[in-house]
Amino acid sequence: MSKLTLYENRFFDSEPSVRSIARELYEGIKNLPIVSPHGHTDLAWFSQNSPFPDPTELLIIPDHYVFRMLYSQRIPLEALGVPTRDGSPVEHDHKKIWQLFADNFYLFDGTPTGIWLNHVLSTVFDIDETLDLNTALDIYDQVNAKLQTPEYLPQALYDRFNIELLSTTDPAESDLKHHRTIKNSDWTGNVIPTFRPDGVTDLSRVDWHHNIKNLSDVTDIDINSYKNFIHALEKQRSYFKEMGAVATDQGVLSPHTHELTKIEADTIFERALKGNTNAGDAELFTAHMLMEMAKMSLEDGLVMQIHPGSMRNHNSVIFEKFGLDKGCDIPVQVEFTNNLYELLNKYGNNADLTIIIFTLDETTYSRELAPLAGHYPALKLGPPWWFHDSIEGMKRFREQTTETAGIYNTVGFNDDTRAFPSIPARHDVARRVDCNFLAGLVARHIIDIEAAHKMSRALTYELVKKGYNLN
Amino acid sequence: MSKLTLYENRFFDSEPSVRSIARELYEGIKNLPIVSPHGHTDLAWFSQNSPFPDPTELLIIPDHYVFRMLYSQRIPLEALGVPTRDGSPVEHDHKKIWQLFADNFYLFDGTPTGIWLNHVLSTVFDIDETLDLNTALDIYDQVNAKLQTPEYLPQALYDRFNIELLSTTDPAESDLKHHRTIKNSDWTGNVIPTFRPDGVTDLSRVDWHHNIKNLSDVTDIDINSYKNFIHALEKQRSYFKEMGAVATDQGVLSPHTHELTKIEADTIFERALKGNTNAGDAELFTAHMLMEMAKMSLEDGLVMQIHPGSMRNHNSVIFEKFGLDKGCDIPVQVEFTNNLYELLNKYGNNADLTIIIFTLDETTYSRELAPLAGHYPALKLGPPWWFHDSIEGMKRFREQTTETAGIYNTVGFNDDTRAFPSIPARHDVARRVDCNFLAGLVARHIIDIEAAHKMSRALTYELVKKGYNLN
Amino acid sequence: MSKLTLYENRFFDSEPSVRSIARELYEGIKNLPIVSPHGHTDLAWFSQNSPFPDPTELLIIPDHYVFRMLYSQRIPLEALGVPTRDGSPVEHDHKKIWQLFADNFYLFDGTPTGIWLNHVLSTVFDIDETLDLNTALDIYDQVNAKLQTPEYLPQALYDRFNIELLSTTDPAESDLKHHRTIKNSDWTGNVIPTFRPDGVTDLSRVDWHHNIKNLSDVTDIDINSYKNFIHALEKQRSYFKEMGAVATDQGVLSPHTHELTKIEADTIFERALKGNTNAGDAELFTAHMLMEMAKMSLEDGLVMQIHPGSMRNHNSVIFEKFGLDKGCDIPVQVEFTNNLYELLNKYGNNADLTIIIFTLDETTYSRELAPLAGHYPALKLGPPWWFHDSIEGMKRFREQTTETAGIYNTVGFNDDTRAFPSIPARHDVARRVDCNFLAGLVARHIIDIEAAHKMSRALTYELVKKGYNLN
Repeated sequence: MSKLTLYENRFFDSEPSVRSIARELYEGIKNLPIVSPHGHTDLAWFSQNSPFPDPTELLIIPDHYVFRMLYSQRIPLEALGVPTRDGSPVEHDHKKIWQLFADNFYLFDGTPTGIWLNHVLSTVFDIDETLDLNTALDIYDQVNAKLQTPEYLPQALYDRFNIELLSTTDPAESDLKHHRTIKNSDWTGNVIPTFRPDGVTDLSRVDWHHNIKNLSDVTDIDINSYKNFIHALEKQRSYFKEMGAVATDQGVLSPHTHELTKIEADTIFERALKGNTNAGDAELFTAHMLMEMAKMSLEDGLVMQIHPGSMRNHNSVIFEKFGLDKGCDIPVQVEFTNNLYELLNKYGNNADLTIIIFTLDETTYSRELAPLAGHYPALKLGPPWWFHDSIEGMKRFREQTTETAGIYNTVGFNDDTRAFPSIPARHDVARRVDCNFLAGLVARHIIDIEAAHKMSRALTYELVKKGYNLN
Repeated sequence: MSKLTLYENRFFDSEPSVRSIARELYEGIKNLPIVSPHGHTDLAWFSQNSPFPDPTELLIIPDHYVFRMLYSQRIPLEALGVPTRDGSPVEHDHKKIWQLFADNFYLFDGTPTGIWLNHVLSTVFDIDETLDLNTALDIYDQVNAKLQTPEYLPQALYDRFNIELLSTTDPAESDLKHHRTIKNSDWTGNVIPTFRPDGVTDLSRVDWHHNIKNLSDVTDIDINSYKNFIHALEKQRSYFKEMGAVATDQGVLSPHTHELTKIEADTIFERALKGNTNAGDAELFTAHMLMEMAKMSLEDGLVMQIHPGSMRNHNSVIFEKFGLDKGCDIPVQVEFTNNLYELLNKYGNNADLTIIIFTLDETTYSRELAPLAGHYPALKLGPPWWFHDSIEGMKRFREQTTETAGIYNTVGFNDDTRAFPSIPARHDVARRVDCNFLAGLVARHIIDIEAAHKMSRALTYELVKKGYNLN
Repeated sequence: MSKLTLYENRFFDSEPSVRSIARELYEGIKNLPIVSPHGHTDLAWFSQNSPFPDPTELLIIPDHYVFRMLYSQRIPLEALGVPTRDGSPVEHDHKKIWQLFADNFYLFDGTPTGIWLNHVLSTVFDIDETLDLNTALDIYDQVNAKLQTPEYLPQALYDRFNIELLSTTDPAESDLKHHRTIKNSDWTGNVIPTFRPDGVTDLSRVDWHHNIKNLSDVTDIDINSYKNFIHALEKQRSYFKEMGAVATDQGVLSPHTHELTKIEADTIFERALKGNTNAGDAELFTAHMLMEMAKMSLEDGLVMQIHPGSMRNHNSVIFEKFGLDKGCDIPVQVEFTNNLYELLNKYGNNADLTIIIFTLDETTYSRELAPLAGHYPALKLGPPWWFHDSIEGMKRFREQTTETAGIYNTVGFNDDTRAFPSIPARHDVARRVDCNFLAGLVARHIIDIEAAHKMSRALTYELVKKGYNLN
């Protein structure tokens, strides 16, 4: 058994001058509140405020970052308790699953998931020994016991985490039930929705008709035409705004943007309603809806986020057995310069609009995204996303975008997580990496220490608030 | 108000052993003359040798590196005095523009533009306080006063900057008026032209007929056929050589190379003359003209430069209002292995020819360009270009090309600038980054210090002279 | 004349804390045996065990890493003694060639080839002065004298190099003559073949009919149909396994995978036999044969290696005069997410299969390969290949894959070399780079020292044995 220690200078360069500057910068911003405008936490936790069931249910079963690695090392998802779509049985002994996880926790050495889990165990649950095959059950019991106490209820953790704002991601057709419950409760947590229309803008989805039906129901608009579809979206955007939303989000395979004529849009939509979608319809319609969403954003002021380039459900065996979000979404190459041409030519010069671009294709950082964001007033760069929300990933992002776009065309950090207890860990890693990046600039006399203090505060707190219109 | 300091060890690694080796190497080469075989300075400055008008006119209005960043942060180009094409009014109070720039100078923290401007203010104009909202007008006045003195006339600065050679970039149809004036004057500055035929080789340009007309006029050759077009180019190349040119340059979207048959070339050119260019004609003709230019280079010995992969005038709103070179040229992905196949198979084995390739797509450094340059005798790698002419950009270039191509298949540094006062700054940064790169190799015992001294001299002075046939 | 010194801390970071941890880790693994499951040594050396002819014949003439660089600097291959296909004369004075090489050895400063050659000269041949124009002939004589002694016979060097296993790469149609000779001899070296079917699976090769004929002969199967072709492959795989093979290898331009129907495969193969291959046939058949080889691997347990993305013989002048493997194979962009879709969907979930992917396109490390290997149980990442088997190349590989895939989805190091004396050098560099990478993680408190020791042993010895089923 070895001691689980979170070193004070962790993740900073070992070179003493950089390390001490990084530490100085970090001390200046480490206690700033967490602003989390893009994430995927389950709002039911906060609206119901019931205890989290157990360590395995909290930390393993819902976290595809965790079980994707275990699966890659030939541990079946069934053995990890990941529920099947058809209800066929999976391991239900949560202690056994936890033990299996602990036996293989060394696989996460050198990964952000390993870092986050250690941070959660140490700072959230006060565990002081490293998780391994010997300590597994003892740690399970300690965490489990804590989860039953009032201090570990979701709302209590929210407060303890010093969260100023947390956003969920919600389908366009959502009634935002839990958001309403929270609004009407006396809890003071600031949890807002984000408007995500993929389920109704992507004509190729198998659940498209189902989602359109729900959108009709929730808006009381009969979506029997493209025009009504647009009205329904506008109505829901307005409802989301009422419930606190500041942004929309679109997950697209390609960021291709192209405005259809009214007749083209009508025709494609009509074909879709009849189930007669042609090859190419879905791609064109997605390209068109990016243009439409920008137009609506210009009207209602919601910030527009685009997350392109993930091929969803690459592994059809896993998708069919276990469903969405099981660690088998794989990035593809993305092109922005040509694909965003129409969008930026029509809306990119508008100082009242903010479009935030994310990417999983790091090759676009210096080649396309930094030059675009270093020119177009409407365009800002989202932080490193998903696989790149890591120490080296965030370092590459700063090194490859700052010289062309500066830091002021970026928007701080997004944790983008389903794993609520890991939120402080993820923000802490980002703060450390940013401070260390700035310290490297100071140590090499590229910027001075005053600038670095100002920039560290911007990266931690100010840019996210400005970028998402939260001031 | 804080002090503007250029630290002696700036941009070197903070680790003491690397830093001291870098410093030692830098001391050995820092005073070598500047050889600048690729740039965009305005020759009228030197031929007329009038005082530069004022700080804003010198440092802000013509520099798209500067105003692109300000524009991205929602400052209109009009407010920065950037002239419109139709003459519609823009801000003409240059002190006010300078103040606006100074108010926002923090945006450049961590960027090469910030570094260069500080270097210019400190070393060229002896300013000792940092530029910000408070010091703006005082600095303006100091710089302005100096500009009116003889020591700040263009020719005086040229001498003070220790420039051994400076090249401009000139259209194929140019009469090189200012070059002739200088040649005939008693000024001893060595300023040479570079032959850039894009205006007449790119059939898709709106000014193509205009440029062809000018080429006819300047050569006294009636360009009514492809054959005469080639003769006119050859005649102008010969004239450029007389005026000192050592190189040509082609800016192409794609580096695709393909030789047309005589009949194909004749036919396409004839269609172009008649204004009947087909879709695809321009691309094919550009691919063909790369082959033709290589053939001419083999005959007349001019070094052939290729700058591919920038989509010009991405922002049509800005282009229409303000014209070319307004910070909205955006890189695209580039492919070299297939595209250069014909060129290299026909000319790449020729030891009498030098083809220098530049790229804005850093992904090609290790994958395509270093392997190609590490094999073909005719091929050399140009330095990191434009967005990548920066501390991190130059570091990536060396790290990603040296192991495969060595340093001797590269050609030193190009400043590529319109901003004349920044030339020493840019070369100084490049020298520091190269010395630091070599110091890292020495500190890790990859090379010894003797090799590093030899290599630092090669990177600073010898390779550029060899690469551009300047010996 | 300066001293040739291999510093004990070479290639480690100069920052003292990282350096000392790296050294500690390296001390723990530096003496582990070499396991080399992928390479291209000439087995005749070991089966005949005759002295290597001379330094030039051993170190220059067969090594395209060496003569590609010299050729790029305008030294003709003829002057380096590289044999022509038609037997036209080349330089045969091996001392003169060695002198020419030594005169230009500075070109390799900062390259892995330079590092390896210095390591070979120092540790294999006890040379203590650096190779340059003055020391050339003296060093030639020293090396030459040693080569005539029993200690420098191939088998003796094999033993001295502490090689536990060495694999060659052999065409599918090989009779593995030298492997049989060695098996039947009393030499205890463990040299195994690898099954490489490219010569018979790539229908576009000019020697395809010739290779098919040889495959027929060696298997005694009349390959007059696709069915018999498959039988012949299966029979040879089985024979390779008998001779010790643990793996196959396929070098393909694109990793596109696609299963043809039986009828499609039959038809394409029949066309190929008749010499009537259609455009597209070769690509489709290659995509299909990747699927077939995976199926066979699932049956016979051979590990499947795929090396995509090299355009062979880019320089047709050199290829026609000198033949294959003359330094003019150039990488191209590669796409994995879509291309491996069929293969991984059919076979990727199988825990009994191992597919090892290599790449020359580093942009795929973080974007595609790490996410794929961090999910699919059958998929592992091969080490940095060819141009990227270098200090910076290996560093980029670890930095860009570890955070997503961990280290346990990689398979240790491959030297992949024709240059037998450089094998210890290449493994030593890899071990140092891996230890230094881990030391950086320890110094930044990302992992602890115990984990680093465990990981360094895995990267050096355990993962290669596990990945290639060598336990």
